Amino acid sequence: MKIVSLVLYAGLLVASAAAADPLPSWNDTGSKQAIIAFVDRVTRADSEDYVPPAERIATFDNDGTLWAEQPVYFQAMYVADRIKALAPRHPEWKTQEPFASLLKGDMKGVMAGGEAGLVKLVMATHAGMTTEEFERGVSEWIATAKHPKSGRLLTEMVYQPMLELLAYLRANDFKTYIVSGGGIEFMRPWTERVYGVPPEQVVGSSGGLKYELRDGKTVIVKLPEIALNDDKEGKPVGIQRHIGRRPIAAFGNSDGDLQMLQWTTAGAGPRFALYVHHTDAEREYAYDRESHIGKLDQGLDEARARGWTVVDMKQDWNRIYP
Amino acid sequence: MKIVSLVLYAGLLVASAAAADPLPSWNDTGSKQAIIAFVDRVTRADSEDYVPPAERIATFDNDGTLWAEQPVYFQAMYVADRIKALAPRHPEWKTQEPFASLLKGDMKGVMAGGEAGLVKLVMATHAGMTTEEFERGVSEWIATAKHPKSGRLLTEMVYQPMLELLAYLRANDFKTYIVSGGGIEFMRPWTERVYGVPPEQVVGSSGGLKYELRDGKTVIVKLPEIALNDDKEGKPVGIQRHIGRRPIAAFGNSDGDLQMLQWTTAGAGPRFALYVHHTDAEREYAYDRESHIGKLDQGLDEARARGWTVVDMKQDWNRIYP
Repeated sequence: MKIVSLVLYAGLLVASAAAADPLPSWNDTGSKQAIIAFVDRVTRADSEDYVPPAERIATFDNDGTLWAEQPVYFQAMYVADRIKALAPRHPEWKTQEPFASLLKGDMKGVMAGGEAGLVKLVMATHAGMTTEEFERGVSEWIATAKHPKSGRLLTEMVYQPMLELLAYLRANDFKTYIVSGGGIEFMRPWTERVYGVPPEQVVGSSGGLKYELRDGKTVIVKLPEIALNDDKEGKPVGIQRHIGRRPIAAFGNSDGDLQMLQWTTAGAGPRFALYVHHTDAEREYAYDRESHIGKLDQGLDEARARGWTVVDMKQDWNRIYP
Repeated sequence: MKIVSLVLYAGLLVASAAAADPLPSWNDTGSKQAIIAFVDRVTRADSEDYVPPAERIATFDNDGTLWAEQPVYFQAMYVADRIKALAPRHPEWKTQEPFASLLKGDMKGVMAGGEAGLVKLVMATHAGMTTEEFERGVSEWIATAKHPKSGRLLTEMVYQPMLELLAYLRANDFKTYIVSGGGIEFMRPWTERVYGVPPEQVVGSSGGLKYELRDGKTVIVKLPEIALNDDKEGKPVGIQRHIGRRPIAAFGNSDGDLQMLQWTTAGAGPRFALYVHHTDAEREYAYDRESHIGKLDQGLDEARARGWTVVDMKQDWNRIYP
């Protein structure tokens, strides 16, 4: 019984230490201090800058901010896998570009088709089916899809410090949103399980939708057209369309998030903007100004000029993945 | 002291009666019983049809369901008032239709321009300005705008039984949404105060938006184009776009809500659909199959065929307005 008590006591100590530090994967550097100071400033009842819970909106980019985005956006892996899975039903793809190159594994050939070619791949895998069929396809795929370098499930390539940050903000009555250039319906099937963010708090790039009768059943069909490109200038637009009020805190990692951070910080009262800077070539990846994926150039300059928080992944995080 | 105690006691009795009946403005008829039975069925822990709180999504039409819509949609009053207010800055409107007719109070002349004319009026009052300017205009207008027949504030022309229903559902961990053909940005400035529905839970018809720099300040500008016509087939589309999951309960009053009710009830598991039928010419208005505003024809037939709840306003509600 004595040992049981001791173990129990040790467990309680650990639990209470965890309760005292809501961000255990963050080193005690300036980034962590800035986050905690901001949350304290807007939630303490006697604070001059108190913000009522209803207005505590926080928006997060996804790729490179909540989960990894190297060596390619994970949604691109979905497109490639899906084209391969659908190929038997599309014999014409054997000779049609960019499908032919993709099926041969010739990525240079795929890229030769430029943006128009990529759009063809996206439309072939993201339109024509019902929203429920698409959701089922994504759910099945993401249950087993693995990262080409780490071999982990993609849903395990999420940043533990950011999971803690999401939970910390929600514990302080923030409503946490994802605002991503990724497809809205690609994310919604798994964001609640992985991030604790329900589908209605996911904003993303989206295509046209059409309500219709198919085989005597009402369905919503995904159309091959863009309704919102939720990147750069599209992010404040997505926020306005879906949320209808300006966030007080925003989190990103690339120039694609710059307008969201500008829009967030341009509001009156206390505001918080944070960039995750990928500086850890060993535990994750190191990239910024020259990267084709997640380029952070203008954003880095603006963050420094305006005093936004820049997370130095190597210095600030003592753990990367859960 | 004795009197004080008695008053206090009486007060407690009233309070406890109110607590016992969450829907005091509803008579004890089939409609009320159906609502309570459904909520009990999906929330009782030992119910076979238990639905977890995260999935308790309820969607409400606005015009004619939460507030009145006769003799004209209230948003049309906004358009007319706004055109009059803007007229001094638009001398050309004196000769341009449909503006000229509207400014002379000649509604027949306005209607002669058909839908194209109405679109001109809407665009002149709903596009070109920033979202913040538009919001300010709506907020100022709605603070004093009165109903032409009752003389009450428009925000007092809301249905007390529906306010109770919204609160009752929320008390049972439902997330309540508005899904209206009305303009999303016309509703958002006041729905939280009037209905307890925050801006991010309002879905409505919407125009294009553009993020841009104006006078060195970043703004979002409203564009003269339709992004979503949130009526009929547009309602399930708006629900999918904004919420991303199917509601388990939906509330409407017209054929414009039929697709929302179909979409809601076509899902698996327990579902609830309700039509408010305007049957009370004395306390409100009586209209259905032949009405130009809020026409309820096909919906009424389908509701009866499928056993949806149809509120007979005259019989089922003991109070209309707060």
